[in-house]
Amino acid sequence: MRAAERETAIRVAAMGIFRRKGYHAASMREIADAVGLNKGSLYYYISSKEELLVRLFQGRAEHVLGELEVAAALPITARERLSAMVRTYVLGVLGNLDAVHVYLREEHALPPTALKQVRRVHQAMRDHFERVIVDGIRHGDFVERDPKLATLALLGTCTWVHRWYRPGGRLTKTAVADDFAERAVRMLSA
Amino acid sequence: MRAAERETAIRVAAMGIFRRKGYHAASMREIADAVGLNKGSLYYYISSKEELLVRLFQGRAEHVLGELEVAAALPITARERLSAMVRTYVLGVLGNLDAVHVYLREEHALPPTALKQVRRVHQAMRDHFERVIVDGIRHGDFVERDPKLATLALLGTCTWVHRWYRPGGRLTKTAVADDFAERAVRMLSA
Repeated sequence: MRAAERETAIRVAAMGIFRRKGYHAASMREIADAVGLNKGSLYYYISSKEELLVRLFQGRAEHVLGELEVAAALPITARERLSAMVRTYVLGVLGNLDAVHVYLREEHALPPTALKQVRRVHQAMRDHFERVIVDGIRHGDFVERDPKLATLALLGTCTWVHRWYRPGGRLTKTAVADDFAERAVRMLSA
Repeated sequence: MRAAERETAIRVAAMGIFRRKGYHAASMREIADAVGLNKGSLYYYISSKEELLVRLFQGRAEHVLGELEVAAALPITARERLSAMVRTYVLGVLGNLDAVHVYLREEHALPPTALKQVRRVHQAMRDHFERVIVDGIRHGDFVERDPKLATLALLGTCTWVHRWYRPGGRLTKTAVADDFAERAVRMLSA
């Protein structure tokens, strides 16, 4: 196995173990075992369990934020933009189920700079949603008294999918994303 | 301090420490310090950290479920019942912010019987919401194709308040509960 493949394997294994047992209860030894390395060799790839936790989230939220920015800038109505953004966000959560689960649970174990970065990205996502809602109110697409609260309600619904979605179950990821996009527009259209 | 008061003080202290540091990182020594006991005396009141975790949730979800049952049985329209139920549920989350936070994070640390009991209560809550939605569809109160998904969307919004609500902030607990009750009915009324 080449180094890059090995690193990916380590991350995938760590994610699964963190998800199943929790970050604190997981040991570097278990992670090493899961990828067929001894503990000493594992430290060649990664300096600490904390570094591993930080790396798990790196790039993921930023990637979804990038897609949200694209959707938010489309030359379509606020209603259509909101719909595209909800779809993107829900697919982002559903495509990173373990990472979202681990992040929401282990947030407090992240070192301050990493936590600050993730929170900044999440705040930027919220801002995009709030802006499209405000824009939709101005153009008569939406009826809403409190865009801030509407954003939190909406992101609650969309983020919560990580708690109940089971891959291979009744609904595909796309079906959930489409349904929630429609539901979001309806919630704001009274 | 009498024994009952001491026990309450221990629970409150433990909840705060679990919330702040996480269950695994918290030590019995810190909990003892927080209530002015030595570690040995703490074990007079509680046999283990795990027992403490289990006790933190005892009765809370059951209490909210009891209130939901009352609301679900009121002789009013499905729309009004849903509104009352959402209000009850949101106030239940907002009245137990630390407990909800700790539960959602430390679920996997609960012993199997305790976890089963909490999950049973949560399932019963979901069933009540689904039933009132189905009932509302039948009576023409709601327009909804997928009552199961609507329930999950709704409970996502309502449970997520534990992540963003700050006591003493812009909105009172009652204001959030009232807003979400109205929002839920709107989401289902298209």
